[in-house]
Amino acid sequence: MGYALICKLSLSTHCCVGCMNGTILYFDLERSSRTQILSHMCYKVFLETGLFETFRIPMKEFITYFHALELGYRDKPYHNRMHAGDVLHGVYYLTSQAIPGFQMVPADPETPSASDICGQRAWFPVEEASYGIMGANFTSLELMALYVAAAMHDYDHPGRTNAFLVSTHAKEAILYNDRSVLENHHAAAAWSLLLSNDDCNFLKYLDKAEFKRFRYLVIEAILATDLKRHFEIVAEFNSKVNEHDSPGIDWTQEDDRLLVMEVCIKLADINGPCKVHDIHVQWTYRIAEEFYEQGDEEAELGLPISPFMDRDHPQLARLQESFINHLVAPLCKACAEAGILPGYWIDDVDNVEGDGEGDNTTADELSIATSSCQETDNENDESSYSDDNPTIFNCKRKVFCLQTKHLQDNHRHWMHVIKDESKKKDEVVAVKTESVAISTEDAMETILEENNTPHSLNRSFSFEKEDSKL
Amino acid sequence: MGYALICKLSLSTHCCVGCMNGTILYFDLERSSRTQILSHMCYKVFLETGLFETFRIPMKEFITYFHALELGYRDKPYHNRMHAGDVLHGVYYLTSQAIPGFQMVPADPETPSASDICGQRAWFPVEEASYGIMGANFTSLELMALYVAAAMHDYDHPGRTNAFLVSTHAKEAILYNDRSVLENHHAAAAWSLLLSNDDCNFLKYLDKAEFKRFRYLVIEAILATDLKRHFEIVAEFNSKVNEHDSPGIDWTQEDDRLLVMEVCIKLADINGPCKVHDIHVQWTYRIAEEFYEQGDEEAELGLPISPFMDRDHPQLARLQESFINHLVAPLCKACAEAGILPGYWIDDVDNVEGDGEGDNTTADELSIATSSCQETDNENDESSYSDDNPTIFNCKRKVFCLQTKHLQDNHRHWMHVIKDESKKKDEVVAVKTESVAISTEDAMETILEENNTPHSLNRSFSFEKEDSKL
Repeated sequence: MGYALICKLSLSTHCCVGCMNGTILYFDLERSSRTQILSHMCYKVFLETGLFETFRIPMKEFITYFHALELGYRDKPYHNRMHAGDVLHGVYYLTSQAIPGFQMVPADPETPSASDICGQRAWFPVEEASYGIMGANFTSLELMALYVAAAMHDYDHPGRTNAFLVSTHAKEAILYNDRSVLENHHAAAAWSLLLSNDDCNFLKYLDKAEFKRFRYLVIEAILATDLKRHFEIVAEFNSKVNEHDSPGIDWTQEDDRLLVMEVCIKLADINGPCKVHDIHVQWTYRIAEEFYEQGDEEAELGLPISPFMDRDHPQLARLQESFINHLVAPLCKACAEAGILPGYWIDDVDNVEGDGEGDNTTADELSIATSSCQETDNENDESSYSDDNPTIFNCKRKVFCLQTKHLQDNHRHWMHVIKDESKKKDEVVAVKTESVAISTEDAMETILEENNTPHSLNRSFSFEKEDSKL
Repeated sequence: MGYALICKLSLSTHCCVGCMNGTILYFDLERSSRTQILSHMCYKVFLETGLFETFRIPMKEFITYFHALELGYRDKPYHNRMHAGDVLHGVYYLTSQAIPGFQMVPADPETPSASDICGQRAWFPVEEASYGIMGANFTSLELMALYVAAAMHDYDHPGRTNAFLVSTHAKEAILYNDRSVLENHHAAAAWSLLLSNDDCNFLKYLDKAEFKRFRYLVIEAILATDLKRHFEIVAEFNSKVNEHDSPGIDWTQEDDRLLVMEVCIKLADINGPCKVHDIHVQWTYRIAEEFYEQGDEEAELGLPISPFMDRDHPQLARLQESFINHLVAPLCKACAEAGILPGYWIDDVDNVEGDGEGDNTTADELSIATSSCQETDNENDESSYSDDNPTIFNCKRKVFCLQTKHLQDNHRHWMHVIKDESKKKDEVVAVKTESVAISTEDAMETILEENNTPHSLNRSFSFEKEDSKL
């Protein structure tokens, strides 16, 4: 698939998300050449959020750096500059779009805050007091760090997983002592590019403290994308926000804001299943192809082929079902419960597609999806924010969230595919059983195949164990 | 100071520790040339513990690797191969010497255990059932990992702190994203040396699972020596072992054994103040010289000189007092309370030097030192170990520990020096005050100096904030 198509696909993705929210986020990707997609997106995001002015970013160095950065992304099927642009879009979407019931913290006059920037945006219906924008609760420096981290986060990705690099004693694994090998490399290489050449230093006008904090935040955000830490980070977030007696996000605390930044970049990094089905399928083919290329190399090296990486036994539906069920849905659920996903109050939407009811018996985690109730914590919130904020609701109102809606649709699709495949397999087994008398050899093959099936059926996409990295 | 003296010093250190325990650990350092001290020590330790046979270590590759390793240590005043040998000795001492009341876990017949090795050692008085040896509770693989980690742990140290590398944007800091920069480099470079050359691979006969586990343990142990993690690790250990309702060390659990390994290498790494005074002073001069060299470079670069690194304002006593008080003593106390420090039951010792009483009013942490009571947890222990082990004590018996005794002596010494320095400074101030009428300029200098003094007095050696690395 050529890059022109990818650009088109990505544009569609963005439009699909944007249109449904009534606030189209427009990137003129048609005019972007295949090697400039990421730098164009960075430019647009910085322009939209006023970061150029806030931090006196020199344009020449900015363009020089981000173009060098995008050229450093390899032409891999999945982990290419298009994916980096997609994650940048993801964090921009989460931080710039209206969230029903979201409480914006009054800006600290001492700190340059993003609230000024976001508050002035044309695409934010400020007159709607029952909505908020998450970006307004970050400082401008944090927001810039989140966007830059997204652009950097898979720089020079080799198209192999951490587990592969570790098990083959790749030089990158030795260098990073088997710990977050890829993520450490992406961050270090992207920062080295920035600091090794004055022409690239778009941060030259940051003061020392700003630079130090910015660098720290970018590194933390990139390292948070290691899926080996997925359950740890989701658990920390749930413990902070969603569990009984959780204190909730204290937006005045740097550590709390960093945790939300980490959750944002993580969601943006694995949000393929949160896109409209056609786009999700395209990304699925791409990650599968990258996996197969690793599987080919494993076979060449005489290593066992990793789960889902054998091109002779494609398992797209199981890969995605497991990925959604174990990784994406729990994170989406945590975000939805925390009330940080863009969307609409149900009574504000005229033409919501579907009502969220359907085949969700196999994915309890997804029960929070479409049309679920995002409760606003301000009901009982006695903090200073709510005192001055008129957005206090006396009843639980339902929200519509496009991302969870797509997630549910896509999960339902893969479940159907799995059932169909299973049904077809059963039919083949039945036919082969009937013909057992004809060929014993064929029957043996079938039995062996069947013996393998239960194992495959039970195999989950466990990143905890496999140390994989999407 | 030449290496011959260092060798002699180190030998003295070892002898001083060994003799007091009645079990002389003899390293024939006289025969070691200046470049072979570390490889000779490694050879001796592997020989003593039978690791050569247990893991079929090929001698040629072993010698080739450890000689290459010791040559990779730079000729820095402190972080040289002598220090690596000292830390190797430290972990060997902790794991091989008799500990009063220590309970040895019955060996798991399924796992190659170190208990066989240690139990056969001539220097272990097996007939004394009221003593135990910590090494017996580790597997052989863990013990080997601990020793190899000690030998590797400061490989290619540049004689600068992590904080310096980070603040100057050194290429190593960029490479490791400002996180445990030195420790990551030591581990990665030492492993790269091992894996990049077949002639160095003394682990070639380990099976895949053994190699994987060994590599993991060595890396964990080396990374634990980052003093930025000191309080976190000590707190975790105290929470596991020493606090009210702590579960205690479960020696059947890999994670618990790894935590003890980390504590062992940490104690060995900062055990200078646990040595006899003369030796401790020599190491103090060496770390001070290395600090001054960094201070010189900071001055050249126009950076503020880091605390304790200005050779024009030496503060040896305050450096060591703070180092002992904030870092060494809390760790020593944790180990003593956990009952993992070698020593003697008080009633077994005829000629114990001192009784632990003295000037300890300024170091509460040290109150646990000499002659303190190491309670044995087996009083109330209902685990399977105590059921079969006759070492159950009905009363709390006092133990003598040479390391804590030295620590207390050394702390007392530095406190005296600080008092003397303070007294002399007061006298100088008094003289200068009298001569104020003679020279206003001189008086101004004195006042400025005095104004700086309280700051210096209050300055503690906080690694948490400074991110320093000894």
